[in-house]
Amino acid sequence: MELHAADQYLVAPAEAGLLEVYERLSGTGLFPPFPPVELPGGVGGLVARGGFAQAFFFPAEVLGLTFKTPKGRVVRAGGVVVKNVQGYDLVRPFVGSFGLLGEALEVVFRLRPGQASAFLKKPFAGEFPELTPSPRFLFALLEEGTWWLYAYHFGHEKEVARFREAFAGEEAGPMDLRLLFPQGMGVGEGPLRDLRFPWGDGGKPPAAPGLFRRLAEAL
Amino acid sequence: MELHAADQYLVAPAEAGLLEVYERLSGTGLFPPFPPVELPGGVGGLVARGGFAQAFFFPAEVLGLTFKTPKGRVVRAGGVVVKNVQGYDLVRPFVGSFGLLGEALEVVFRLRPGQASAFLKKPFAGEFPELTPSPRFLFALLEEGTWWLYAYHFGHEKEVARFREAFAGEEAGPMDLRLLFPQGMGVGEGPLRDLRFPWGDGGKPPAAPGLFRRLAEAL
Repeated sequence: MELHAADQYLVAPAEAGLLEVYERLSGTGLFPPFPPVELPGGVGGLVARGGFAQAFFFPAEVLGLTFKTPKGRVVRAGGVVVKNVQGYDLVRPFVGSFGLLGEALEVVFRLRPGQASAFLKKPFAGEFPELTPSPRFLFALLEEGTWWLYAYHFGHEKEVARFREAFAGEEAGPMDLRLLFPQGMGVGEGPLRDLRFPWGDGGKPPAAPGLFRRLAEAL
Repeated sequence: MELHAADQYLVAPAEAGLLEVYERLSGTGLFPPFPPVELPGGVGGLVARGGFAQAFFFPAEVLGLTFKTPKGRVVRAGGVVVKNVQGYDLVRPFVGSFGLLGEALEVVFRLRPGQASAFLKKPFAGEFPELTPSPRFLFALLEEGTWWLYAYHFGHEKEVARFREAFAGEEAGPMDLRLLFPQGMGVGEGPLRDLRFPWGDGGKPPAAPGLFRRLAEAL
């Protein structure tokens, strides 16, 4: 992994684990666009599925990509500067394309600064609540018959303290959720939910629009 | 134009002017992802060129699109909810594709709230400065032989007041810049610059990567 702390981005091979990224960033005051939770397929799997647990526009946090198309072409898309996205964007259609546009080889993530972070959990009532301050990540996990709401936030110390107080949950820690998905992580009823999808073992990708499939065939 | 103030989005026909959008939003406390400046092609032209003057990731502010592909297919892409972008994204590749993927018919913009706004100008030294607070929009315009730096910001009253003080410029107002581009607004040396490009009369679109052209042909 290649950390560019001053420019706030990280270049990670697709096979890097999400918790490996957290380890690499430890002590830097910089955070990636996903919570400290290990998921199938590492960074490449995460990007193919369009992220996890985010309460923001995840594709914008993927600054660049190298990927291999279904026909075997290797494509470099995007760059490392977020402000200056110049058009002809092949990064954003790849993110969340569930493998239809190919396989990621390397991912450039935007990092964001934070002086503090908090990972909390409390019982989940079945609907994702509107929270103030709004944490950057929110998901629900079924554990031994009980659904828990997990929230992860980072940012200014005061902001994180206010979140901690308002959320009023128990402390949580980094988790490995790969064992929940022995047949792969897909969309479908299962023990995990975020703001976009329920995630199930062996679940399917969402149906792709016809035009998007056409696009995939062209690559 | 169809304003959904509670849900903070606006549906605009591609031919709507940028200043018409500002008029429509007047008094609502909501702002679009472009400054109060009229440009060629209205909303459709703006989206084809990938926005104007933004210091943020413009494509994320385009929530949805209806467009006509070069082969004449009419495509509805995206939706009206930013958090829940579900993948298979055809909106973001369209934004900034300079007509290569077709022509916008209707655009759904995310709106953002602001209690106050300020449009200021001061002499431009040739490089875009790092400003604190950082205004949402920044561009440079050549007027009668002198380059001016224009900055437009909106947000909380205090934030805008701090910007006004730090920038220390003269008041500016809505402008019609269409007359600068009788042969069309494209990328190239001219009397207008933003963080991405110099914009010139009759300028060309930037060169598209081969894979992107392939994608365009498939639509």
